[in-house]
Amino acid sequence: MLSKISSLFLGVFLSISLSVFAQKKKDIDLETVTEKNLKSGIAILNDLISIPNDSNIPEQLWPNLEWCERNFGSRGWKTQRLETAGFPLMLAEMSVPKATKTVLFYFHVDGQPVNAKQWDQEDPFGPVLKQRNSVGKWETIPMSRLDNGFDPEWRIFARSASDDKGPLAMFLTAWDALKAEGKSPNFNVKVILDFEEEIGSPHLGPAVNMHKEKLAADMMLIMDGPRHISNEPTLTFGARGIAEITLTVYGPRNDQHSGHYGNYAPNPAFRLSQLLSSMKDDAGRVVIPGFYDGISLTEEEKRILAAVPHDAETVKKSLGIGSTDKVGATYQESLQYPSLNIRGLYSGGVGKEARTIVPSTALAEIDVRLVPESDPERLFALIRKHIQQQGYHILDQDPTDVERQKYPKLVKWQGTISYKAFRTPFDSAPGKMLNNAYIRAFGKEPIKNRISGGSLPIAPFVDALQIPAVTVVTVNSDNNQHGPNENIRLGNYKEGIKTALAILTEELK
Amino acid sequence: MLSKISSLFLGVFLSISLSVFAQKKKDIDLETVTEKNLKSGIAILNDLISIPNDSNIPEQLWPNLEWCERNFGSRGWKTQRLETAGFPLMLAEMSVPKATKTVLFYFHVDGQPVNAKQWDQEDPFGPVLKQRNSVGKWETIPMSRLDNGFDPEWRIFARSASDDKGPLAMFLTAWDALKAEGKSPNFNVKVILDFEEEIGSPHLGPAVNMHKEKLAADMMLIMDGPRHISNEPTLTFGARGIAEITLTVYGPRNDQHSGHYGNYAPNPAFRLSQLLSSMKDDAGRVVIPGFYDGISLTEEEKRILAAVPHDAETVKKSLGIGSTDKVGATYQESLQYPSLNIRGLYSGGVGKEARTIVPSTALAEIDVRLVPESDPERLFALIRKHIQQQGYHILDQDPTDVERQKYPKLVKWQGTISYKAFRTPFDSAPGKMLNNAYIRAFGKEPIKNRISGGSLPIAPFVDALQIPAVTVVTVNSDNNQHGPNENIRLGNYKEGIKTALAILTEELK
Repeated sequence: MLSKISSLFLGVFLSISLSVFAQKKKDIDLETVTEKNLKSGIAILNDLISIPNDSNIPEQLWPNLEWCERNFGSRGWKTQRLETAGFPLMLAEMSVPKATKTVLFYFHVDGQPVNAKQWDQEDPFGPVLKQRNSVGKWETIPMSRLDNGFDPEWRIFARSASDDKGPLAMFLTAWDALKAEGKSPNFNVKVILDFEEEIGSPHLGPAVNMHKEKLAADMMLIMDGPRHISNEPTLTFGARGIAEITLTVYGPRNDQHSGHYGNYAPNPAFRLSQLLSSMKDDAGRVVIPGFYDGISLTEEEKRILAAVPHDAETVKKSLGIGSTDKVGATYQESLQYPSLNIRGLYSGGVGKEARTIVPSTALAEIDVRLVPESDPERLFALIRKHIQQQGYHILDQDPTDVERQKYPKLVKWQGTISYKAFRTPFDSAPGKMLNNAYIRAFGKEPIKNRISGGSLPIAPFVDALQIPAVTVVTVNSDNNQHGPNENIRLGNYKEGIKTALAILTEELK
Repeated sequence: MLSKISSLFLGVFLSISLSVFAQKKKDIDLETVTEKNLKSGIAILNDLISIPNDSNIPEQLWPNLEWCERNFGSRGWKTQRLETAGFPLMLAEMSVPKATKTVLFYFHVDGQPVNAKQWDQEDPFGPVLKQRNSVGKWETIPMSRLDNGFDPEWRIFARSASDDKGPLAMFLTAWDALKAEGKSPNFNVKVILDFEEEIGSPHLGPAVNMHKEKLAADMMLIMDGPRHISNEPTLTFGARGIAEITLTVYGPRNDQHSGHYGNYAPNPAFRLSQLLSSMKDDAGRVVIPGFYDGISLTEEEKRILAAVPHDAETVKKSLGIGSTDKVGATYQESLQYPSLNIRGLYSGGVGKEARTIVPSTALAEIDVRLVPESDPERLFALIRKHIQQQGYHILDQDPTDVERQKYPKLVKWQGTISYKAFRTPFDSAPGKMLNNAYIRAFGKEPIKNRISGGSLPIAPFVDALQIPAVTVVTVNSDNNQHGPNENIRLGNYKEGIKTALAILTEELK
C-alpha cells in the first residue's frame, strides 16, 4: 500500500516536472549540450561495442540484449522482450505525460561476422582509438587522449562502431544530455531493437504483425546507415527491399573428365553463363520484359534526385571503374529501379582447386534489390518465365534420374523474399519534423535521398503499423561497414548525438 | 683384369642365351604363363601402390623413384636419372644382343592428390581387396583370399592402382614371366618413367629434347589409361593435347555493397557470363571463327570412328544428361575436334559465403583440348581476338588504376600450353605390331580409338624423337581415376600382364 502511494506520488511529481520541462525543451543550445556529454557518450559507445555480437551466434547476442535492458531500464524506460520465431526483439518505452504522439525508433544491435586476422587490431571487440599519420595510415593512440582533447577526425575502430551500435549509443547519450538539462520530448518514445538484422531479419515480419499493438506509433525513425559520401547531414526517405535467388544449372550427374566428355556432355558453366547473359544487355540493363514496369520518374522527381550531390568522375575513380551501368541516367536515378545482381558464381573449382573436368553443376547467387513499384512476387514470376523461355525446366530440388533424361536443360530455383521496399514522401509528418530538427542542428536542410540503394527491414513495420518511416543516417560513409576495420569518425559520432538531441527536442504536433 | 675377363665371359654367355631364347619367344602359351605369374604380379602391384605418390609432394616421389631403380636394377636393367627442371625422369634400358629395333615404353609413377576422408578405406595407400556384395556394394575381403582363389571381378583399391602404377606392375610382371620362361624380346627395350604427369609434366618437353639421344627408339608405347567402356581390348592411336586459360574479368577495385552500387558499378560476373556465352552456341559448338579449321573427316574416317562401339542412350543415362553437345555427329567424331571447356567459375562467394556485393572480379578456368590440326598458338590467337572484339582490353596482370579508368572492359589472360596432340596411323609399325600381339593374346583385333579425348604428355616425345606412338590401354574404365576409391579390376590386371607379355614376345622386324 505504501509503495503504491509513493509510486503514485512519484508519478504525479514526475509528470508535473516532465510537463514543465517539455514546455522549455527548445531552450537548450544543441552544440554546447552535445559537447558537454561527448565524453560520457564515448564511454557508452566503448562499453557497448566491447560485447561480441555476431548475429549467427545467439550466445553472443544475449549479453547484448541484457546490456540494452540494463541501460534502458536504469534510465527509467520500461523494457520488454518481444517473442519472435528466432532471437527476441527488445522494446523500450518512455511515456511522456500529455504527449499525444508517439515516435518509434529502430536500431539493430547485432553485427556481421568478424575475421580477426583481417583486422589491424588484435580484437575487433576491443575498441581502439586511431588517428591518421602524415602518410595517411591509421595509427593507434591511447584512448586516454580523449581526456584532454577531441579531434573530429579521430576514429574508434571496432565491429558495429558504425553499424549499428554507434547510433544506439548516440541516442542514449542524447537522452542523458536531455535529462541532464532537465528536459523531455513532447512525444512518447518507443525504441525497437533488432538482433537479427545482419542475417536479414528473417523473423521480423511475422513478429511485427503479432506485436503491432505494442509497437503502435505515429511515425518510425530508423537510426542506421551512413550519410551521403560528402559527409553532409543526410536523411533517407526509403530503402530498397531485397530478394535472393540461387540458381543451380545441371550438367552430368558427376564431374566428368573434360578430355573424355568435353564436346559431348553439356557444360553447366557455359549453360549458366548463357542463361545469365540472356538477362541483361551490355549496359547492365535487365532485358526481361516487364522488369522495370511501373517506374517512371517525373521531371520534378528527376530534379530532386539531381539535387543530391554526385560527382560521377570521382566515384568512378574511387571505385576503379572505367564506365558505369546505364540503368538510370545518373547514380540517383539508377537507385530508383530494381537491380539484378550476381553476387556469387561457382562451378568446378578455380586456382589450385581447378581440375580438368566437365563440372556437374554451376551455381549463381543473385540478389534483387526492390523498389516500391516492383512487387517481388511479380519479378520472380517474370524471371522464371524468362528462364523457361530459354528452354529450361525449373526444379525446386536436385533432379531425379528421370528428370535428367526427360529435360535437356535443368535449373534449380531457390528464391527468398527477405523484405520489400519502402518510400516515404519528403513532405510527410516525419519528413517535416526531421527537416526542422536538422535546420536547428546544422543551420541548413539535409541532403535528401528519395530511397537508399541498400535495404533495411523496415517494410514490415510500414506495412503492419501503417506509419511513415524515415532513416536518420549519421555515420561516415567510409566506415568499413561489414568488413574488417569498421570504425566511426568521432566528428560523426558527435554530430549524431546532436542530431538525436535535435529530434528529441523537436516539437511534434 | 680378372673382373674384366669374367664380365666379358658373362656377357658372351648372356648374349648367347638371350639369342637362343629370342628365337623361341613365341613358343609360350600366353594364358598359362600369365596365370602362373599372377600372384607374384599382385604382390608387385601391392608393394608399389603402398608408396604415397602425390606429384605435388617431391618428398613422396623420391621413394617411388628409388623403388623403380631397385626393381629395374635387380632385374638386370641399366637405370639412370634424367635431369629436368623439376623432378627427374628415370630411364631403364635393356639391350638385347642382335636386336636392331628399340621400343620405348612410357609410364608415370606419380598420382593425383588424395583426400583420405572421401575414401571408403582408412589409407588410400594401403591396398584393399574388395568384392561386390549381393546389393552391389563393395566390401573388403582379406588379401589372403588370393592365396586360394582368383575372381576377375575382385578389385584392389588404392591411389594409382590403375593410373598408372597398375600398368607398370603389369609390365614388370610380364618381364618376370618372360624371364622365368627363359625368353627375351627380339628388340631392345627402354622404359621412361615420368613423376610429374599428374601436374601436367611441365618440364618434360625441354627434358626430352635435352636427352633425346638416350631416348632414341623406333617407336613408343604408352601404357596408361582405360580400355573402351565395353572393357574389350583396346588400342588408342593418339591423344588430344591440352592448354589452359584463366580469364579474370574486373569490376570495381574492391567488392562493393550491391545495394549502393547495384545498377551502377558494372558486375564482373555478368560480364564474364556474357563473354563466355559469346564463345559457344546453344549446342556447345565454338562460334569463334577458325576454331575448327583444318578438321574434315572423310567418309572412311567416319566409318572407322563408327566402328568403335558406342551406345549413346546408355552413355546419356550413365552420365545423367538428357542431351549431348553437337560438336560431332557422334561421340567419337566429337573427340576429333578441339574442345573449349569451362572447368571452373568463381566470383564473390556462394552458399554461406554469399554476401550482398558487386564482386570485384569474376574468374573462369578453361581447358582447351587440342587435336593435331589445332595448333594451340593459333587457337589462343583466335580466342584473344574474339575477346577483343567483345570490347575487352586484355591484360597479363591485374589492372593499374590508370588502366581501370582508361578501359571500360578489362580481362586478364593467363594461358599455358601444356602439350600438343599426337595421332599415329593405324597402319604404322607399332599399329601393325600391336594388332598382331592383341590377336595372339585375345584372338581378335582390338577396338581402335583414332584419338583419346584425354591428354597424355606424349607429343614432346613424338616431336623430339620423330617416332610413332600408340597407347596400350589396359585398365577398367570405371577405375575412379583421379577420384576417391581408385581401383583396378583383377581381370584387367591379369589381361594387362598378358597384353604386355604378348607385346614383349612379338617379333619386331
